[in-house]
Amino acid sequence: MKFDLDLSIAVLQRSPATLRAFLEGVGAAWVRGTEGPDTFSPFDVVGHLIDGEETDWIPRARIILAQGPDPRFEPYDRFRHRTRNAGASLESLLTDFARLRAANLELLRSWKLGARELDLPGRHPRLGPVTLRQLLAAWVVHDLGHVAQVARVMAKQYRDEVGPWVPFLPVLTDHLSPRS
Amino acid sequence: MKFDLDLSIAVLQRSPATLRAFLEGVGAAWVRGTEGPDTFSPFDVVGHLIDGEETDWIPRARIILAQGPDPRFEPYDRFRHRTRNAGASLESLLTDFARLRAANLELLRSWKLGARELDLPGRHPRLGPVTLRQLLAAWVVHDLGHVAQVARVMAKQYRDEVGPWVPFLPVLTDHLSPRS
Repeated sequence: MKFDLDLSIAVLQRSPATLRAFLEGVGAAWVRGTEGPDTFSPFDVVGHLIDGEETDWIPRARIILAQGPDPRFEPYDRFRHRTRNAGASLESLLTDFARLRAANLELLRSWKLGARELDLPGRHPRLGPVTLRQLLAAWVVHDLGHVAQVARVMAKQYRDEVGPWVPFLPVLTDHLSPRS
Repeated sequence: MKFDLDLSIAVLQRSPATLRAFLEGVGAAWVRGTEGPDTFSPFDVVGHLIDGEETDWIPRARIILAQGPDPRFEPYDRFRHRTRNAGASLESLLTDFARLRAANLELLRSWKLGARELDLPGRHPRLGPVTLRQLLAAWVVHDLGHVAQVARVMAKQYRDEVGPWVPFLPVLTDHLSPRS
């Protein structure tokens, strides 16, 4: 499948409602569980997605579109949310994420990007040269990876409860060395 | 986390709305993509979950609760949905899944299961002896595994579009030998 801006926005705009339907009211036992030390809970994932709205995807798109002499992105802090959201509720994070995402997609649409802009280059601090198209595709995949992570982390809370079903439920044994 | 009936129902009752928020209107390019031959698209996953409502989880719970002389489950056809849903729309499948799931959870609640019932045994055709508690925990994990699968399959449609981001987006390289 080739990159398509409208189809990318179709995924990006659904993530807040998807996570709300998945997590709101489901209970702290599901929302706060992790895969082990230094891994994300579903609550952490929503906080991390908020950080992405504020400091990652759109700020980096702006750097590319500005085409200044050094289109190098700021490094991204994957753990900014930890201290920031220590006292927050899941409900407030879901609301913040929905609001920030809607504003960012409105901005993205307002740019009316065509093939010329999508080919513009930026510089990732670790990955090197990337295009705006690749950045936007990575934003979509990043969302989807974190939805998959939320489901996997929740599933693992029942790892010991399914008895002999483990080999038929591969989500339980994915990422035995957890990554955040 | 120990098995808890209310917390299990909390997850099970959210799956239809989660999949609707995720998939409704997102576009056929996302909904019909797969990970390769003989693997499920998001559309197939919804059909498979419908089959589970009709032929797997609750029918097996009934067999356990009946405590007949042979509490052996019927084998489950993981590909029943293929021919059955060949002409169906995603919308109709999402509606069917929501209706069937709601009815099954109403039935499950009506049983007012306690520890005694949850310990009752059945016999899985391949896994051997299992309890009702394990069956219900597996139902929860099965839902979550398929939500993770939907997100992963969608993400992989952009495998070639993210350029150098691949190593930072591990969902793209999960299950290189796809399983349905």
